[in-house]
Amino acid sequence: MKAQPRPRELNIKIGVLPTGKLNAITDVAGVKVGQVTLVQGQDVRTGVTAILPHDGNVFQQKVPAAVYVGNGFGKLAGSSQVEELGTLETPIILTNTLSVPTAADALLDWTLGQAGNENARSANPVVGETNDGYLNDIRGRHVKKEHVLEAIKKAQSGAVAEGNVGAGTGTVAFGWKGGIGTSSRKLPEKLGGYTVGILVQSNFGGVLQINGVPVGEELGQYSFKETLDKSSDGSCMMIVATDAPLDARNLKRLAKRAIMGLARTGGIASNGSGDYVIAFSTAYRIPHDTDQPTAAVTLLHNDYMSPLFLAAIEATEEAIVNSLFMATTSEGTQGHKIQELSREKVMELMKKYGRVN
Amino acid sequence: MKAQPRPRELNIKIGVLPTGKLNAITDVAGVKVGQVTLVQGQDVRTGVTAILPHDGNVFQQKVPAAVYVGNGFGKLAGSSQVEELGTLETPIILTNTLSVPTAADALLDWTLGQAGNENARSANPVVGETNDGYLNDIRGRHVKKEHVLEAIKKAQSGAVAEGNVGAGTGTVAFGWKGGIGTSSRKLPEKLGGYTVGILVQSNFGGVLQINGVPVGEELGQYSFKETLDKSSDGSCMMIVATDAPLDARNLKRLAKRAIMGLARTGGIASNGSGDYVIAFSTAYRIPHDTDQPTAAVTLLHNDYMSPLFLAAIEATEEAIVNSLFMATTSEGTQGHKIQELSREKVMELMKKYGRVN
Amino acid sequence: MKAQPRPRELNIKIGVLPTGKLNAITDVAGVKVGQVTLVQGQDVRTGVTAILPHDGNVFQQKVPAAVYVGNGFGKLAGSSQVEELGTLETPIILTNTLSVPTAADALLDWTLGQAGNENARSANPVVGETNDGYLNDIRGRHVKKEHVLEAIKKAQSGAVAEGNVGAGTGTVAFGWKGGIGTSSRKLPEKLGGYTVGILVQSNFGGVLQINGVPVGEELGQYSFKETLDKSSDGSCMMIVATDAPLDARNLKRLAKRAIMGLARTGGIASNGSGDYVIAFSTAYRIPHDTDQPTAAVTLLHNDYMSPLFLAAIEATEEAIVNSLFMATTSEGTQGHKIQELSREKVMELMKKYGRVN
Amino acid sequence: MKAQPRPRELNIKIGVLPTGKLNAITDVAGVKVGQVTLVQGQDVRTGVTAILPHDGNVFQQKVPAAVYVGNGFGKLAGSSQVEELGTLETPIILTNTLSVPTAADALLDWTLGQAGNENARSANPVVGETNDGYLNDIRGRHVKKEHVLEAIKKAQSGAVAEGNVGAGTGTVAFGWKGGIGTSSRKLPEKLGGYTVGILVQSNFGGVLQINGVPVGEELGQYSFKETLDKSSDGSCMMIVATDAPLDARNLKRLAKRAIMGLARTGGIASNGSGDYVIAFSTAYRIPHDTDQPTAAVTLLHNDYMSPLFLAAIEATEEAIVNSLFMATTSEGTQGHKIQELSREKVMELMKKYGRVN
Repeated sequence: MKAQPRPRELNIKIGVLPTGKLNAITDVAGVKVGQVTLVQGQDVRTGVTAILPHDGNVFQQKVPAAVYVGNGFGKLAGSSQVEELGTLETPIILTNTLSVPTAADALLDWTLGQAGNENARSANPVVGETNDGYLNDIRGRHVKKEHVLEAIKKAQSGAVAEGNVGAGTGTVAFGWKGGIGTSSRKLPEKLGGYTVGILVQSNFGGVLQINGVPVGEELGQYSFKETLDKSSDGSCMMIVATDAPLDARNLKRLAKRAIMGLARTGGIASNGSGDYVIAFSTAYRIPHDTDQPTAAVTLLHNDYMSPLFLAAIEATEEAIVNSLFMATTSEGTQGHKIQELSREKVMELMKKYGRVN
Repeated sequence: MKAQPRPRELNIKIGVLPTGKLNAITDVAGVKVGQVTLVQGQDVRTGVTAILPHDGNVFQQKVPAAVYVGNGFGKLAGSSQVEELGTLETPIILTNTLSVPTAADALLDWTLGQAGNENARSANPVVGETNDGYLNDIRGRHVKKEHVLEAIKKAQSGAVAEGNVGAGTGTVAFGWKGGIGTSSRKLPEKLGGYTVGILVQSNFGGVLQINGVPVGEELGQYSFKETLDKSSDGSCMMIVATDAPLDARNLKRLAKRAIMGLARTGGIASNGSGDYVIAFSTAYRIPHDTDQPTAAVTLLHNDYMSPLFLAAIEATEEAIVNSLFMATTSEGTQGHKIQELSREKVMELMKKYGRVN
Repeated sequence: MKAQPRPRELNIKIGVLPTGKLNAITDVAGVKVGQVTLVQGQDVRTGVTAILPHDGNVFQQKVPAAVYVGNGFGKLAGSSQVEELGTLETPIILTNTLSVPTAADALLDWTLGQAGNENARSANPVVGETNDGYLNDIRGRHVKKEHVLEAIKKAQSGAVAEGNVGAGTGTVAFGWKGGIGTSSRKLPEKLGGYTVGILVQSNFGGVLQINGVPVGEELGQYSFKETLDKSSDGSCMMIVATDAPLDARNLKRLAKRAIMGLARTGGIASNGSGDYVIAFSTAYRIPHDTDQPTAAVTLLHNDYMSPLFLAAIEATEEAIVNSLFMATTSEGTQGHKIQELSREKVMELMKKYGRVN
Repeated sequence: MKAQPRPRELNIKIGVLPTGKLNAITDVAGVKVGQVTLVQGQDVRTGVTAILPHDGNVFQQKVPAAVYVGNGFGKLAGSSQVEELGTLETPIILTNTLSVPTAADALLDWTLGQAGNENARSANPVVGETNDGYLNDIRGRHVKKEHVLEAIKKAQSGAVAEGNVGAGTGTVAFGWKGGIGTSSRKLPEKLGGYTVGILVQSNFGGVLQINGVPVGEELGQYSFKETLDKSSDGSCMMIVATDAPLDARNLKRLAKRAIMGLARTGGIASNGSGDYVIAFSTAYRIPHDTDQPTAAVTLLHNDYMSPLFLAAIEATEEAIVNSLFMATTSEGTQGHKIQELSREKVMELMKKYGRVN
């Protein structure tokens, strides 16, 4: 985690809505994030990021959830059960593509091992990924179950490390070093007062635009500039947390808006991109077992969704920008090296394009 | 159709890919557009826009097609059959919300009446809409079948009228006068050389951004500025045509990117928005009846889709901007008046934000 | 409506769950059905069936709803908005394929005209259809708006006419005369005590099986018997009503089970079949406009859904069988004639196969 | 694998279409099946079933594929990429719920290790499962990677073992011992001559019906008989192979029909059921890497799909029946014992209900 300022501290103010206190997914009360960064020798540049919807037994006290697939290249585990039942019953793990099975297995260890789950014979691990194989020896599958369990254990409230950390350790976005980024929006009370928090693992291509400024074009680095290559490929995992009382249907609608935030950064959801959004609400919980056939749930009316949509779009855009700003130049396997986005150059462009003074 | 210049003529250059010759959906060879504008007295501000994939018998010679639902508030007719069979078998009609049944009925008249369709007992009319009820006496349902048939009949290649025309006569976007807009991209030969053309009917809200410039904020007009209202509602119909040889699956993927273009203009796909994309390819045709169980089709490999995605994103963004630029101040029912987006003010902002000299 | 006995009165008992009092969709309290039958001269064999979820203002007091597409050949109007918002805001109309626009337009008349809807500028008419073009001069589009309005007006609780009535007047199923059929299941109290009611418009093919008895094979009439023809085509509209407190997600799951009931009759959801299910719950209502951003809703826990699934499967199977049993031989346009399924022969087969004594 | 006769040899003839030579999924030329059965001590009753679409390098030579989710409780790995790209790039592995990550990891080992895949940094393992936790110590996760690799290695053409074998070793269906079952249909030449093969892993509940005979009711064992329990839960994995030249869209439609076959056995796709269908075609292959942007593919016209639908329905029904017939009484963990379906009693019922002489 770098000591350097975040874009907003540099006066890059994305969107019209106010952020939460930390400008992080952890502004949604109860949400915790834990990360394990694996940097070993020349070859290992990967890691794990865990997002916990609450710190209780998530299997016993599920949260309403939805998955939206922007572009489904990618190996997200657990999506079909979330879609069917509308619930999330494990923490969400992000890691690299080839470590999804390991992470899913670790989530099983963790879930089956929790007090109260002694009789559980089924659990739905949710694991997302992007492919860090340019910097990381991904075929080596260096993420082990203990790394995943450690990330869960370390999960905490408060500020979230960004950039080359956790599942973002080895990722690349728009040709620069990507990584983990987070942001949030807190709606004004008259718009409901809800918080929407986003965390992204950025690893994708396109034509970078930061708060409307054509950074990719100006710096001469963007997809298809020269020829048809796969430089636009990669993926972006997006996690959306909110305290708004939404059911799975409206959570899915909210999730769809994260892709619109990605679009605003110049992402194109290329053919080989795994652009997935997982959204959950902390507003209520759904018991695993219950003697009560019905339960009263307080839900937001459709008509009040739009400000949340805007919040998700803005926070996703900012989270992606944060992931780029906070990442640092990295060298990895096979001598591959990815430069960080030059903050200096970006700030010059921000001035040139009238976005900062 | 105004004599005024289009944004690109004013040096507002959106995206990195070149446009087609006309910068219009009709750059896709064979595609025709016909429009009927209904402006009568104080109350009628509506119309019809027809898009023909080719000028043969579309029912007998269907084109591969797909529909993507960005936000499904809205009354699009015909989507489920397109999804199931992967084909479009009528022209696409755009009109106002309450005239969808009339337009669908007219499409049946047209299809059943065409030479060669004497025995047709089923046809799937595809009709999209947005709600022009602020300027137009929409409850009066002033669009009649003859208007729809006339729009089809008038359909032609060449330049497409934009702004307050056809189905865009009474629409409102970002609080300014919206309407019909179109744009295209022609991929360089090394990226396949294909053309993607877009036509939009803009009628939605959000926080307007033009080529990255925060026009909505600067002009003090955007959704949720003051309070929770439904000002962000409305809809955007987007038609994507291409000559790339795509099947329905890849057409649906292409359609999804149009929403990303909408996102770049500041649209948020609000709760009450009907944001639909209909995509079709002109590369091959699918016969209604055939004695041949199989047919050889040349299809683009998934890996070559990404440049088309970028093309769809850019052209949609530009088509929406075009729809705003080319629209003019309009007064309608109940004395409602909607101002056009001031081109002068926009150009000042373009300068302020370094986008034009 | 025939005076003849329904299959259950003849001891054909489908499934293991008890029926509701009327063994009809109207066993779900508040649901009303109205039908208009059009039999004119040689050519007109069609009609309208209207299903009302309650007799209030459905636009102002929407009901939770979902649509499931078994096979999406077909022209169902209104599905995408139901999917997005999870609500039904008009009665459901069933009619013939080419009369969908007329019926949708009539629903607009009805909705816009209701007291309290004076300011409505948008409404989402839901209209299903099957193609009765073998017996009916479907190209003549003989259903007029007044027929639709009359069906709505006539809607009532109580027994529902089956067979050649309303939207089932000219339909054909498994090569015999099809039509409207209905059935219901009432769960035992220990399974929740809820009622599931089904109404079908049967117009499809396959290999008819009645309560497990191979009627189609025995009577020598089934799809693909001789050659590849389109005899299996056609469609089946299925309406599922329940008083169980379900949200849209679980209503969609319930809707999916209706297709499983159809499968049990030997239906195959052929290529040209429009097999759609529309499900709604009467357990609570969703106001069109509200000053309350949130509302408390009592919802059934996922774990308690399975008995409802079985109920939907059984009642759909029985409703289809009822539609066949209650239909009568019909002659229509171009001298086409469709025989009724011989009740005598079926009962003989029921005996032969040990299903009745 | 039992020496006992299969149902068809006992004259239980399901459906109207002829079977393939082996009445197995391996009737589709090139398809291979390998199974590893784990029966150890009192507690281990599980295994692995591998289905290979061809015996080349599946990653380099992908096959067109689709997934249909009947009920998405369950942990199927790999579905979203199959949906997006329309291709299958690994063998399909079936195992128990908690061993999905292990199996996915083994598929990665296998794929990354194959000659020609040295540079692969991404692969999409497809693993299905049902929960055998009643007979098997599922929490012990006794399936190891070597078992999965062995199942792939053992895969062969020819007859397929059914019943308590491979992934069906510990499964339960309708309260009796379930397992692996397979069946096929070969269309007459005039219907295209294509073969459809099905393989199921049966582990679900409902009200068992065999070829229309109410076995569950007669034997007094079915879901919800006494009370609301979860006895109907469980899952059914269904694999559909065909040599018909279908694209992903039509493969998904074909996959949907397998659920209709399941319905005909009395399955209800209960809340806790993971009823997934994976369909693929062997008719053509899609190269992983190619310099050719386009390829000519011969595809079946929509209109010729219906016989394939019937084939999938019939073969799925028969495969499930086969899985029950071929399974044998099994005792497992915690002393749990599941009886086999009594072939004698079933045959008596077949006679009683006129299905065999």
